[in-house]
Amino acid sequence: MKIPEILIVETLHQPGSLARVLQVIADAGLAIEHLSALRRDQGRTLWEITLEMDEEADRSLYERIGKLTTARFVGKSDRVFNRHRGGKIRTVASLAINTQQILRDVYTPGVARVCLAIQKDPRTAREFTALARTVAVVTNGTAVLGLGDIGALAGLPVMEGKAALFAEMVGINGVPILLNEKDPARVCAAVVAIESSFGAIQLEDFAAPECFEIERTLRARLRKPVLHDDQHGTAVVALAALINAARFSGHDLTASTVGQLGLGAAGTGIVRLLRAFGVRKILGTDRNAQAIARLEAQGGEGVTLEQLMRRCDVVIATTGKKGLIPPEWIRPGQVILALSNPDPEIEPLMARERGAAFAADGKGINNVLAFPGLFKGALEADARHFSDAMLMAAANTIARLAQGDELVPDPLDTQVHEQVAAAVRQAAQAG
Amino acid sequence: MKIPEILIVETLHQPGSLARVLQVIADAGLAIEHLSALRRDQGRTLWEITLEMDEEADRSLYERIGKLTTARFVGKSDRVFNRHRGGKIRTVASLAINTQQILRDVYTPGVARVCLAIQKDPRTAREFTALARTVAVVTNGTAVLGLGDIGALAGLPVMEGKAALFAEMVGINGVPILLNEKDPARVCAAVVAIESSFGAIQLEDFAAPECFEIERTLRARLRKPVLHDDQHGTAVVALAALINAARFSGHDLTASTVGQLGLGAAGTGIVRLLRAFGVRKILGTDRNAQAIARLEAQGGEGVTLEQLMRRCDVVIATTGKKGLIPPEWIRPGQVILALSNPDPEIEPLMARERGAAFAADGKGINNVLAFPGLFKGALEADARHFSDAMLMAAANTIARLAQGDELVPDPLDTQVHEQVAAAVRQAAQAG
Repeated sequence: MKIPEILIVETLHQPGSLARVLQVIADAGLAIEHLSALRRDQGRTLWEITLEMDEEADRSLYERIGKLTTARFVGKSDRVFNRHRGGKIRTVASLAINTQQILRDVYTPGVARVCLAIQKDPRTAREFTALARTVAVVTNGTAVLGLGDIGALAGLPVMEGKAALFAEMVGINGVPILLNEKDPARVCAAVVAIESSFGAIQLEDFAAPECFEIERTLRARLRKPVLHDDQHGTAVVALAALINAARFSGHDLTASTVGQLGLGAAGTGIVRLLRAFGVRKILGTDRNAQAIARLEAQGGEGVTLEQLMRRCDVVIATTGKKGLIPPEWIRPGQVILALSNPDPEIEPLMARERGAAFAADGKGINNVLAFPGLFKGALEADARHFSDAMLMAAANTIARLAQGDELVPDPLDTQVHEQVAAAVRQAAQAG
Repeated sequence: MKIPEILIVETLHQPGSLARVLQVIADAGLAIEHLSALRRDQGRTLWEITLEMDEEADRSLYERIGKLTTARFVGKSDRVFNRHRGGKIRTVASLAINTQQILRDVYTPGVARVCLAIQKDPRTAREFTALARTVAVVTNGTAVLGLGDIGALAGLPVMEGKAALFAEMVGINGVPILLNEKDPARVCAAVVAIESSFGAIQLEDFAAPECFEIERTLRARLRKPVLHDDQHGTAVVALAALINAARFSGHDLTASTVGQLGLGAAGTGIVRLLRAFGVRKILGTDRNAQAIARLEAQGGEGVTLEQLMRRCDVVIATTGKKGLIPPEWIRPGQVILALSNPDPEIEPLMARERGAAFAADGKGINNVLAFPGLFKGALEADARHFSDAMLMAAANTIARLAQGDELVPDPLDTQVHEQVAAAVRQAAQAG
């Protein structure tokens, strides 16, 4: 898997010096993800260049940059690691504990009164504890990003990232919970044992097919919202993008034949939400027979890649397989969302050249658009579970908030999250 | 159990009006815990009066205050509940996530690099996640404060209080974990399943005798600090108080015969720490034969209350039984720490009248003095477990920081916690 690398390169401040560096990078087959000048003095400029590359590609690239007469490879940036130093989340007290009276109110002896009130009526825990704003972010590390089964501990930076986004976007307390268990029954038992600590449960980076059984079991056993983000968070954002893509290209989504390439967690979640949205005809492909069986249980039809490309008006791909879609199979007028990161199943430009009405990759399709508002809305409504209506309310709201030719809006706009939360809450209360 | 109640009373601003209110309270056998004027206008003053009382005593007291011609019972204060509204802890992001570049560094795609570094070397999780500053505050709610088995959910306000104190005193992330399990084996299995989420485990309000097996099992299974606060946190503060009490009264603690009344979690923890401190002769009482067996396994001697009072130079009581020690059994020159809250086993004034060299109750003996520094020191040292040396370092430091005739220092002084942490860290590194 390609991962981002930030190079620090110094160039002479003269025409062509940066261009030569970028040419070396281009010759290595790498695109520039980001570039900025860190500083300039004494006729030299220090650049920070972000690429996505394989680790083995590193050394030869650095050597080639080092051979330029007008540039110098300074090193790799520690910025990503520096931003992780000491962790990405902090717990703070809601009020300063700086007098004896406050100490006696929030701790012993005063706290006893609150404990007794909750013992008498457990519903008051929503009011007098942080429960209704606290979400467990649970993983066993079996499918972290595109890295595979790297273990729960190695997945912790992702869980802390989710928790930091919960805090920043909607003021929710996210609590990373790492499980040293792979067996679905034991995963569920561990979550059930601690579930009363949390207002809701977000399942993260559990591998398919175990993820389906785990979510189904926990939804049935717990009377609080449980959501496997890789299925439904991703599906909500994909549906939002699809709603806009269909609008841009003049397709009626429910009347279209929609093809889903890849029926893992994300693909299965997308198919489920498309069905709920009212899409009547869904085709799908996956190498795994169990995945096809899941699709057919959802009312879809398993086909070959070639059949899918020939029959579908709209194609969504979440396979993780770079260049899977041969350009010659693109049909004029198709809508193509090739969502795998960092490398899409087909480059959007190429799909357009072959006549696609609309094509996009997954660079802007970030599930951070969905999960903060989904959980805030569910918690505010005191919902017992996430319904399809809640997921669709989120997708419709995200789609509606995109501006101009955006597929989806800016995930850093906290107003987006507040509006998603409001729509989800309303859907929960209406349901 | 008595719990604090805050009364709001309005009096005419004239001599004797407040005195009459206090006389009514005195006639009900209640002491004033706190009193302050909220406001005064138009010849009337609004008072906030804190008492510790049984709920059934409430109504008649309010009626009697209401019958006074110069005062009016306005109501009970919601202050304690208001200070709990929405919970006592918040999670915040360590850095503001407000640009695309920061989002890409702390979340995908940048986070992948940190995940891979941790997969390669799990030790780096200490550096690039919040793990080394995160403590689970775990309870099953079987012995919450003096309220008994009120269940884990009703114990949540206490756990949030601990977490808020961790945050305020030493900047540690405390995570309340509520277990719906009473069986020790299942409690341990639940903690083991999630242990890699945390740098250390604080066990809270687990009932004796199960608490002993639970702590022993988890200490053996986990390679990280585990501490049952009700045993050892309490013991550290009690030992600190005892060190100062012995100093004030000229006793040599290690050469003294020390008696421990009550051998539950706190008493057993105290005996353990006294032994580690070098106290050679320890007597103890408890109605429970298993508790006496524990004492004898620790090298102590089970006796009757009368024998203990006759033979001991120093007596510590943690029985929860008001007035358990008959005043006539106090021996001249004895040191008495009657630590049960809110009502001690003997009033300190009475013990002094009967010739005690020193006597105190548990009002100022708050385990918030110990646990923040204990965990911070252990985490900073990357300790595998809490050793007796670490507990004693904490006790000695707390004792040393008491000023004048204080038994223990002010728990709101963050410098106290930092110094405890430093002493614990040094003891861990030396061990």
